[in-house]
Amino acid sequence: MSSENKLHAFVRGEIVPLDQAYLHVSDLSIQRGYGVFDFLKIINGRPLFLEDYLARFYASATRMHLAVPLSEDALKTTIYRLIELNRLPMAGMKIILTGGYSDSGYDIGDPSLLIIQQPLRLPGQALRERGLKVITHDYVREVPTVKTINYSMGIRLINKIKENGADDVLYHREGLVTEFPRCNFFIVKQDGTVVTPAEDVLRGITRKHVLELAGRTYKVVEGAVTLDDIRQASEAFLTSTTKRILPVVQVDDVVIGNGKPGAVTLSLLQDLIQLEEREA
Amino acid sequence: MSSENKLHAFVRGEIVPLDQAYLHVSDLSIQRGYGVFDFLKIINGRPLFLEDYLARFYASATRMHLAVPLSEDALKTTIYRLIELNRLPMAGMKIILTGGYSDSGYDIGDPSLLIIQQPLRLPGQALRERGLKVITHDYVREVPTVKTINYSMGIRLINKIKENGADDVLYHREGLVTEFPRCNFFIVKQDGTVVTPAEDVLRGITRKHVLELAGRTYKVVEGAVTLDDIRQASEAFLTSTTKRILPVVQVDDVVIGNGKPGAVTLSLLQDLIQLEEREA
Repeated sequence: MSSENKLHAFVRGEIVPLDQAYLHVSDLSIQRGYGVFDFLKIINGRPLFLEDYLARFYASATRMHLAVPLSEDALKTTIYRLIELNRLPMAGMKIILTGGYSDSGYDIGDPSLLIIQQPLRLPGQALRERGLKVITHDYVREVPTVKTINYSMGIRLINKIKENGADDVLYHREGLVTEFPRCNFFIVKQDGTVVTPAEDVLRGITRKHVLELAGRTYKVVEGAVTLDDIRQASEAFLTSTTKRILPVVQVDDVVIGNGKPGAVTLSLLQDLIQLEEREA
Repeated sequence: MSSENKLHAFVRGEIVPLDQAYLHVSDLSIQRGYGVFDFLKIINGRPLFLEDYLARFYASATRMHLAVPLSEDALKTTIYRLIELNRLPMAGMKIILTGGYSDSGYDIGDPSLLIIQQPLRLPGQALRERGLKVITHDYVREVPTVKTINYSMGIRLINKIKENGADDVLYHREGLVTEFPRCNFFIVKQDGTVVTPAEDVLRGITRKHVLELAGRTYKVVEGAVTLDDIRQASEAFLTSTTKRILPVVQVDDVVIGNGKPGAVTLSLLQDLIQLEEREA
């Protein structure tokens, strides 16, 4: 590999080799876990649905009282410069904005903007064919509509997921289902209606596109989903930028439908793949 | 100043000048706000109540599935080496343990241990004489008994505190009072009983010592404190490592007692100062 294939990142105003991308320990992410981020997919050099991700990123920053140090145009220019430098055929790009270097270790400083691009592997055929088994946990994220960097609960639950032989954990509050730590959740009802939780969830970009795609064929509802609704559902699936759509075939001890990935789920996945291919 | 007076920090196994204390952006504190910490006071080269703080630090680490890379003895040796290098007459020392450099940006790696020492100024006489005005906010920390680095809510509320001309924010859940973002809370009832919330609070080291000191003279209760109890209280105060004891004279629109720092509060502060002087 030539040196130009070394990965680069953007850190506080400068493009540097990724292995030299560091933050001072006074940064408010390290001191107080304070920051927001977004994560998008780049296929063949094209960032997919860039406008959607940037709109959410700037909205998250505002909600956490953080000023993005670059205009949307300047941020786009930087994103495209990194993509050109890194030359990855399939990549994830993480844009992080922290509370910055803080003299007091508590008050917000000049926010630190980071952009990190790394190779991305999409889930394989095997996972799509078997579907996921998930456990549930009573928890609502602190600022659920904002993409903060706070994943303490999700990471603390990694061991519990493994111990249960599960793939992920679905959050609910007293039986009212919300989301996974990093994915949105959908069910398909016996009557074919596609439902996804409306309250206390991150508005996923993939969630948004799946809602649009589903609306062409099915009745679509953004509304309450309870653990009991899951018991009655004929299909269930999750959505995310990196996972696209993955079938969920078991929630705790409840087998969904016939325990196999459902027809609606798989047809929506095909629609999503086509949408992404048109975009890329 | 000679170069030996330059502040040093401990970062992932090495003592380095503080201005060269950096973490790679793959660290799980930056990626996911994942970490724990503790904070102790050093007076004339002596860390006060070191055993208490280290016990809590190791307990926090365990609760978050993080292995401290140093034994308690090795950690103490490092703390004393830093104290000797930094030669600060009055200092705060922060010990942070994060989820470490993470390849996936989600799974825990080899935890990063940081120790940062900086000059500390205790609150002045003026603040002690006027007492604090605080606002309230309905919120319980996610893992309240663990000292995690997650202060998203506290930092988001800084503006609200300022807008209300207040000094701090007191958390409660549906009227049941817990703590401040960085301090514990006490009231003194009309009958002289000293009460501090027992549930969903960080077990402060200063809180512990104040409970012991108060128990010598007053009836002391660790139990429920409601917003209504505050209305009826004759005194209120907060405790923390950096603030020791500060009187609270107003909570939202409620003036506590006669609106001036109370006699019990000020006598406990004198007891605490004496305890710290014996320890230092």
